[in-house]
Amino acid sequence: MRYCKNKVTALKIAYIGGGSRGWAWGLMSDLASEPALCGTVRLYDIDRQAAQNNEQIGNSFAGAEGAKSAWRYKAVDSLKQALTGADFVVISILPGTFDEMESDVHAPEQYGIYQPVGDSTGPGGILRAFRAIPMFVEIGEAIRKYAPQAWVINYTNPMTMLVRTLYRVFPQIRAFGCCHEVFGTQVLLGMAYSAVTEDDFPSERSDIKVNVQGINHFTWINQASYKGVDLLPVFDAYIDMMRQEQAAETDPKEKHNLAQHFVKYDLFKRYGVIAAAGDRHLVEFLPPWYVKTPEVAYDWGFALTSVASRKQGLAKRLEKSARLLSGEDKPRLKQTGEDGVRQIKALLGLGDLITNVNLPNRGQIPNLPLDAVVETNAVFTRGSVKPVFAGEMQKDVCSLVSRVVNCQETTVQAVLTKDKELGFRAFLQDPQMCIPLLDARVLYEQMIANTKRYLHWL
Amino acid sequence: MRYCKNKVTALKIAYIGGGSRGWAWGLMSDLASEPALCGTVRLYDIDRQAAQNNEQIGNSFAGAEGAKSAWRYKAVDSLKQALTGADFVVISILPGTFDEMESDVHAPEQYGIYQPVGDSTGPGGILRAFRAIPMFVEIGEAIRKYAPQAWVINYTNPMTMLVRTLYRVFPQIRAFGCCHEVFGTQVLLGMAYSAVTEDDFPSERSDIKVNVQGINHFTWINQASYKGVDLLPVFDAYIDMMRQEQAAETDPKEKHNLAQHFVKYDLFKRYGVIAAAGDRHLVEFLPPWYVKTPEVAYDWGFALTSVASRKQGLAKRLEKSARLLSGEDKPRLKQTGEDGVRQIKALLGLGDLITNVNLPNRGQIPNLPLDAVVETNAVFTRGSVKPVFAGEMQKDVCSLVSRVVNCQETTVQAVLTKDKELGFRAFLQDPQMCIPLLDARVLYEQMIANTKRYLHWL
Amino acid sequence: MRYCKNKVTALKIAYIGGGSRGWAWGLMSDLASEPALCGTVRLYDIDRQAAQNNEQIGNSFAGAEGAKSAWRYKAVDSLKQALTGADFVVISILPGTFDEMESDVHAPEQYGIYQPVGDSTGPGGILRAFRAIPMFVEIGEAIRKYAPQAWVINYTNPMTMLVRTLYRVFPQIRAFGCCHEVFGTQVLLGMAYSAVTEDDFPSERSDIKVNVQGINHFTWINQASYKGVDLLPVFDAYIDMMRQEQAAETDPKEKHNLAQHFVKYDLFKRYGVIAAAGDRHLVEFLPPWYVKTPEVAYDWGFALTSVASRKQGLAKRLEKSARLLSGEDKPRLKQTGEDGVRQIKALLGLGDLITNVNLPNRGQIPNLPLDAVVETNAVFTRGSVKPVFAGEMQKDVCSLVSRVVNCQETTVQAVLTKDKELGFRAFLQDPQMCIPLLDARVLYEQMIANTKRYLHWL
Amino acid sequence: MRYCKNKVTALKIAYIGGGSRGWAWGLMSDLASEPALCGTVRLYDIDRQAAQNNEQIGNSFAGAEGAKSAWRYKAVDSLKQALTGADFVVISILPGTFDEMESDVHAPEQYGIYQPVGDSTGPGGILRAFRAIPMFVEIGEAIRKYAPQAWVINYTNPMTMLVRTLYRVFPQIRAFGCCHEVFGTQVLLGMAYSAVTEDDFPSERSDIKVNVQGINHFTWINQASYKGVDLLPVFDAYIDMMRQEQAAETDPKEKHNLAQHFVKYDLFKRYGVIAAAGDRHLVEFLPPWYVKTPEVAYDWGFALTSVASRKQGLAKRLEKSARLLSGEDKPRLKQTGEDGVRQIKALLGLGDLITNVNLPNRGQIPNLPLDAVVETNAVFTRGSVKPVFAGEMQKDVCSLVSRVVNCQETTVQAVLTKDKELGFRAFLQDPQMCIPLLDARVLYEQMIANTKRYLHWL
Repeated sequence: MRYCKNKVTALKIAYIGGGSRGWAWGLMSDLASEPALCGTVRLYDIDRQAAQNNEQIGNSFAGAEGAKSAWRYKAVDSLKQALTGADFVVISILPGTFDEMESDVHAPEQYGIYQPVGDSTGPGGILRAFRAIPMFVEIGEAIRKYAPQAWVINYTNPMTMLVRTLYRVFPQIRAFGCCHEVFGTQVLLGMAYSAVTEDDFPSERSDIKVNVQGINHFTWINQASYKGVDLLPVFDAYIDMMRQEQAAETDPKEKHNLAQHFVKYDLFKRYGVIAAAGDRHLVEFLPPWYVKTPEVAYDWGFALTSVASRKQGLAKRLEKSARLLSGEDKPRLKQTGEDGVRQIKALLGLGDLITNVNLPNRGQIPNLPLDAVVETNAVFTRGSVKPVFAGEMQKDVCSLVSRVVNCQETTVQAVLTKDKELGFRAFLQDPQMCIPLLDARVLYEQMIANTKRYLHWL
Repeated sequence: MRYCKNKVTALKIAYIGGGSRGWAWGLMSDLASEPALCGTVRLYDIDRQAAQNNEQIGNSFAGAEGAKSAWRYKAVDSLKQALTGADFVVISILPGTFDEMESDVHAPEQYGIYQPVGDSTGPGGILRAFRAIPMFVEIGEAIRKYAPQAWVINYTNPMTMLVRTLYRVFPQIRAFGCCHEVFGTQVLLGMAYSAVTEDDFPSERSDIKVNVQGINHFTWINQASYKGVDLLPVFDAYIDMMRQEQAAETDPKEKHNLAQHFVKYDLFKRYGVIAAAGDRHLVEFLPPWYVKTPEVAYDWGFALTSVASRKQGLAKRLEKSARLLSGEDKPRLKQTGEDGVRQIKALLGLGDLITNVNLPNRGQIPNLPLDAVVETNAVFTRGSVKPVFAGEMQKDVCSLVSRVVNCQETTVQAVLTKDKELGFRAFLQDPQMCIPLLDARVLYEQMIANTKRYLHWL
Repeated sequence: MRYCKNKVTALKIAYIGGGSRGWAWGLMSDLASEPALCGTVRLYDIDRQAAQNNEQIGNSFAGAEGAKSAWRYKAVDSLKQALTGADFVVISILPGTFDEMESDVHAPEQYGIYQPVGDSTGPGGILRAFRAIPMFVEIGEAIRKYAPQAWVINYTNPMTMLVRTLYRVFPQIRAFGCCHEVFGTQVLLGMAYSAVTEDDFPSERSDIKVNVQGINHFTWINQASYKGVDLLPVFDAYIDMMRQEQAAETDPKEKHNLAQHFVKYDLFKRYGVIAAAGDRHLVEFLPPWYVKTPEVAYDWGFALTSVASRKQGLAKRLEKSARLLSGEDKPRLKQTGEDGVRQIKALLGLGDLITNVNLPNRGQIPNLPLDAVVETNAVFTRGSVKPVFAGEMQKDVCSLVSRVVNCQETTVQAVLTKDKELGFRAFLQDPQMCIPLLDARVLYEQMIANTKRYLHWL
Repeated sequence: MRYCKNKVTALKIAYIGGGSRGWAWGLMSDLASEPALCGTVRLYDIDRQAAQNNEQIGNSFAGAEGAKSAWRYKAVDSLKQALTGADFVVISILPGTFDEMESDVHAPEQYGIYQPVGDSTGPGGILRAFRAIPMFVEIGEAIRKYAPQAWVINYTNPMTMLVRTLYRVFPQIRAFGCCHEVFGTQVLLGMAYSAVTEDDFPSERSDIKVNVQGINHFTWINQASYKGVDLLPVFDAYIDMMRQEQAAETDPKEKHNLAQHFVKYDLFKRYGVIAAAGDRHLVEFLPPWYVKTPEVAYDWGFALTSVASRKQGLAKRLEKSARLLSGEDKPRLKQTGEDGVRQIKALLGLGDLITNVNLPNRGQIPNLPLDAVVETNAVFTRGSVKPVFAGEMQKDVCSLVSRVVNCQETTVQAVLTKDKELGFRAFLQDPQMCIPLLDARVLYEQMIANTKRYLHWL
């Protein structure tokens, strides 16, 4: 890496999970669009061919229309090759396949537990953590060995537990977790602003200032403003507008469609703070209040995503990959909206940045446990990411979040110590686990059996 | 109060709820049996006649066979009269009648929520707190005004929330909460010791040393010994014996009877620490793992106490009262097993005592919130009750207890601020509240309506 | 206040101590230079004539060359008039006169206690706090009454104790304390950078990023960078250069001059972190290691400022005031280097700012006491100032800072409770109070007697 | 070890420093007086001959008049032999000789630092810790290896730092530190009680109940009672009596003698809590308020113990040892007043005990740092020592204690990491280090040079 006149060249990025179809291409686009950075990306993936394909696709981005820097991509054979000398490490992997995810999401349904996503929390999130944590142990140990000074950016779910794992394995790691879920709530706030004030929609999402508290996908906003305007009363008024509109609708299908964000609205009216994630995520962190049955979910306006539909999406991205490799499709630059490249720039001394990330709690949220991974704003500057003091969470919300934090801490501990019974204790702690104890045990065993191919530690 | 040669005379005790049938007579018996103390007990009760009756009954204890001191009892008309000049205050009241308790216990059943007791936690415990907290606000304020230096001993449920209320109202209060529930577990440990070692049953319950952690009725023991012997492995072996016996039984009724303490055994085998309360209490503090349906409860070996049976018990105690008043029955001294009188003696400088009580958390349980009321051992000595450092609770158990602590803190806050919506937030936080949100709301309104006679603040 | 298109007009600022000669003119200059803000400044001062004079001088700034906004200045008669409706409150007062300061600084010298400044800590700082805290109680109460929502910026010393007083009096106050002392260390780091790397001097002070920890005037920097460069090793090399230069010098006077910052250098070499204040301030917060006698101070390269010289400075500023009033001198715009106006803009939603300020510790420095006022970076955004997590202080340095924090907390408590004996306990806690106890008592009484005109509470 | 009918036999005690003249004989006497215990004491000492001598002396105690149990003593050659299978470990060693102590106590005098004892704190205590900590590292490691389950009782000074060292080396160690210094204050309180009330002197020291807070030799009592009486006002009245008596005295020598405990009285009148150690110890933990010069010390009524007088005392004990070995003197049982044997009994399940000991802070003193070793009451019961919650220390006193805690923590860290510069930072932190920095450095180097025979790590 060389710093010179507000540019950094010869940067080395290790990309773990570099064979990804879709997400990787977004990063390639963001890097090619950034004139102040240049260097090499080493692609590592357990699917060696996929990494190879992305090497070819990545290198083609230098020739895309509007590209401002030419990055070199290189598939490598090992974590060691990827990491040695790396300035940054990006981790974005899929722990297991959609077959495992099928068990995660759908096996609990027979006991009346419905999960719209199933990747962050709930029995599905816990089993996914069972698969992913050992992979992150391996990655964390490799970073300690080959790139202890590198900045590590994780995008993989379950975010909280995986960032926590990295810090458990290597406490000096310079890792943080990134997720754009909060950005969607900023956009929703922009819509509310525009609808309520009849002013223009904010041109920049980042002009909507929010104070972020909580854990990934169960994040909350207790202060929000746009320029001179406090957005909390604006949001309150917007909810009333949306509810009236929905109440007036009689067609059931349309009524369902108009109930978008209604879980968030219900939570805001009760707790006075904004849940900053999609309703499909939010309901999974709570007792089965909003998702006791599929019908209840439908009334609240959200859908239960089947894993079958995810499999269809993957098939389409594979076709896209083939077209990019054959040259039938050309790489095109487009903004992903992710903050990754801006974070990298700030860490290199190319301008400060304030954005939300997942970091161990050092006190930025005083009423969540120290060392648990939490999501708040942070200041990125040369050589440091420092959380901004987010303040105490609203008490009842904090109680809801704490349950999940405790459950996740136990989950991580169970996998790190290879303790199946402790894993069951974590499973029981999940807020959705309101079923007879003996049923919970049967479900636990079954979900393990379903996914045992990825559970060597058990 | 006069201290002289290891005796204290002219002691003044205010008894709030002094019209009680049953519990009051136990205290009278304990006082009459104690040679080192003597004085007056002022009986205050909203049922003036009941207090009057107990005045007569109480005064008759001086003549009971074996009585070692002659206490004077006096029914009074106001808290002010009871408290002025009091050295000790005993609080043991029934918040509402069994009609209200009928709603507490049975109304939630239509939504699939079963509560074997319903007086400490769960929707029943919360509604009971709704009734009792305003009474304790009044009592706490009267103590601040008329007896700020007095020692205050509470026996009323929901114990945790009521002691907490006293400290919220009057932070300098010298109050603690007493409950004999843990004593039962000490006796169970004695049985285990005797069964496993084939040694004699311990002659003194207090020789079974236990380290107590948690909150009232959801208390845990992480260390236990009898003389030179560690009782945890003994308890483990005892469970195996009991389980084998039950497994061998084929008669369903007998199988149910043999399943006594099976919730406690299941929890011990999972968490490695002993839940120190009856199973009927314990299951109410947990998600509906053990009590999803009456059948599940039956299989775990415990019963759902109906309020109808409580009403029958009361009727019998009223008959007993009439017989005592008429002289048909004579007062008899018998050991209640309560620690109250021993605590009073220790606080007066008549010998130190270590026993478990409910006190604000000053750090005695580092992983529960500060200021929440917790149950641990404490050292009673002249003029002070100091908690013994109980240590961190087992993590998963702590998570289970924390949920309830949060819920109870919110409940107290809701009543103190007369905030019905905050009350609903507390109601939702209860671990048993795993039903659709809109159902929870309907149940909440209904339970309030059922008991509105005692809910003037709503 | 009106927000419109990235400008704020009709802003109302209350300036307490608005009769100041010198500092007030700097603020007038900064405001006149800022195109995005406009409004009224109400000048309140116990010296009514001085405020009146500044009204005339302030209004003349609108006509200064290069002025970008025309502010209106108005002398007012009471705190109530100044504060009612204020958006911002600026506090910059002198507690007492230089006669009192003469006692603060010079009375302790007869007991061998030498203070180069005497306004922040030490016996002088404590006595100054004795005078200033009651004034801040009055100001804080007036803010609670007349401007509870206003942002309050304090510039008065002793900074830490006075901001603390505001929060003690009115916990919901939106106050912070500003001081440019750290900026000087940023400039020193720029000099080090330029000398060591032979690169240009940084054009913007704010490009030198520092992580700030500690309390005002005893502030420390544990991380510093300029663009891509870590400045801690740079500073280390610079110290070696400076020390060599000084060692080679033989002329005693010149040797003294070359010893500038030598206390800071000594502290850096010992503790590995940079003390971010002038040496004259720093030595007062420590035991008399560097200032046991005037000779020791001279050898360390710093001077003991006499109050006589301060009186001369004031006389010159009074002459300047007369010339400005008579029109002999014209107001001129010049950059003060203060961050005040930028902070105001950020709080109004006109662009975020990260800078160091004094705020109650909410955990931003985990190893200093909660609620004590500490200095760290903070993020200023619309409607909020949030501390950036500064991390734990180096342990030994933390111990040095903690002593002073404890002493200052006791001082504030003593004045708030009007407790002279508690004041003496604070006096004894000061790190410089290494003299026989009975001497300390005599000195305490004498310093009180010397300044009793401003000590009505004693 | 065998537990049987309220007796424990075959107990194994390892005595590190078992060659001691004096203290060892006291332990022998206490053990011989105790009918409920019996077993073997293994004596280990670097002075093998001294251990051998004590083996002979120890075995002779079984024949002493009034002996109730016959212990076997055995000198051993290694820590391994002493520790393997031990139930208890007693540590009482002298780190270095009186020649090293001569430097500890007297070298600082040339810089105006006077230490009446010099073994717990101050430059002397720090250098003593420099010698003793490596010995305790060795002992702690041996305990981890050979007796990880044993209870470890330390009597060696500097108490706080040495118990801390044991926990740093082996965090699971079951160690605590014992010191009878507080007992002397209990006796003083008994004298005050008797003088003020004209009642009899309390027959049992342990009937004087005290709440203990602080660190060893700088311990404080904030609550004290005897039977029904609060002793704090009694102590206050007693001080007035003693002061009047001393004020009336005119003979200077007698005036000095009557000033006994006057430091303690001065501290009590200022802070309202009782410093529970001898004045000679107390003044060393403070800035040089009471000991700036020998004359100041004399006026406060205490003496500076010279090391020469300690050497004379040792010579006498050596003569006594010779007489015991030759049979000229017979072993005699007498009460030492130490709590050691009672603690051992309680830990074995032979009756609970509450007494003051030194343990890591788990929150028993909330305003001292966690994990630092503090002195409070603790409950001894079978298999556990649990601190009693002692509560927050008086704020100003806490500040005084905290300084020393920080200094001691740094000292331990310096020795454990063999970091001479960190050692100097600790040296500077001592409250007595109010001298020019360059003088402090010279003194530090000199004290190291004086005692380098025991400082291999430097």
